Amino acid sequence: MQRDTVLSHVEAELVAGRLRVGDRLPGERALAAQLGISRASVREGIRVLEAMGVIRTAAGSGPDSGAVVVADTAAGITSALRLHLASSTLPVADVVRTRVLLETWGVREAARHRDREQLDAARVLLDAMDRTDLVEEFLRLDAEFHVTLSRAAGNGVVAAIMTALRGAIHGYVLAVAPDDWLPTARRLRRQHRNVLAAIEAGDGERAARLVARHIEGFYRMAQL
Amino acid sequence: MQRDTVLSHVEAELVAGRLRVGDRLPGERALAAQLGISRASVREGIRVLEAMGVIRTAAGSGPDSGAVVVADTAAGITSALRLHLASSTLPVADVVRTRVLLETWGVREAARHRDREQLDAARVLLDAMDRTDLVEEFLRLDAEFHVTLSRAAGNGVVAAIMTALRGAIHGYVLAVAPDDWLPTARRLRRQHRNVLAAIEAGDGERAARLVARHIEGFYRMAQL
Repeated sequence: MQRDTVLSHVEAELVAGRLRVGDRLPGERALAAQLGISRASVREGIRVLEAMGVIRTAAGSGPDSGAVVVADTAAGITSALRLHLASSTLPVADVVRTRVLLETWGVREAARHRDREQLDAARVLLDAMDRTDLVEEFLRLDAEFHVTLSRAAGNGVVAAIMTALRGAIHGYVLAVAPDDWLPTARRLRRQHRNVLAAIEAGDGERAARLVARHIEGFYRMAQL
Repeated sequence: MQRDTVLSHVEAELVAGRLRVGDRLPGERALAAQLGISRASVREGIRVLEAMGVIRTAAGSGPDSGAVVVADTAAGITSALRLHLASSTLPVADVVRTRVLLETWGVREAARHRDREQLDAARVLLDAMDRTDLVEEFLRLDAEFHVTLSRAAGNGVVAAIMTALRGAIHGYVLAVAPDDWLPTARRLRRQHRNVLAAIEAGDGERAARLVARHIEGFYRMAQL
């Protein structure tokens, strides 16, 4: 189909290195002429690339302005995963087990690398969580803390998958937060500090045990 | 943006259970009227949903025919991952480590479940690989064998990620296959049989050791 022409073209340009992150795609009219397809097909292909986090189009841009190549892998996977969780074809229990698998591995690796920059970023997030009792803000920081730990593990693919998983389940987690939030918030704060302390002490096994108990405990409480 | 209206609408319908796998979306014209947006915006939204594996539109369908809800999670993630690997923002080494992580876990789980149907399907694939010396066909069956093992682990999220990873790297694996293929094919056949035998014997630890050596060996040979 015609819109696949745009995807194949952009993929080939990326593989060949003729197109890199930060580069601008040619305008709609130019691309249509170059690929011999309609401008409507070009526009559809551009939308798909945008939804996959491969390009970003500036808001309010005219029909001939270009789109910029970005590298937001997680955004692309997030949208796909979220829609599939919505269709209930992926059970939440499978998400929980996948999180435990990726995060126990992640904190072990993080304890091995002890990446100062990421661990400092994680601590700043925990400090911000100490200062809020608002459920939604707390959970947003919570998700960001877990994603930061997965970045500290030093694997881009796992970090992208983790970011996507967290993004995909955000709505569910928010929906199951208990009305009496403060005791839960206190428990989560303590657990997060203990996980980070174990990583900073280089004790990967302890960090893995703590993070597994932390994730499984939250879902058990939420009865998911 | 207008096309996001279609995505949000479909997601909400899926969550509410008003839209299920196998259902048909309303036609373009009806959706445009219902959501108060242009038909061009509806069409762009539909293309994005299709690229994410959430719906399938029949080839040659008229402008008013509907699209069917499917649940091809892996297809959506595959496209996103492949494009990001193409842009070299995800190093292949990270893919290898992610495969080892997911597949060692997968064969351990598979050895615990011993899902007769999936293991029989895996054996049929190995038999087919014994009968071909064509690199491309061999590697297609090879990818399918690994995906089948991950299905035997009984986790839909991990299976979708694995399928996506395999789909995303297919081109790379094909490109690095050695010219003198037969010795490699013989080695891979033997390794696959040993992994499957360990799973069938219920020896998850041995299966995990063998599959890690198998994956790392292939990439080492390919010098990726």
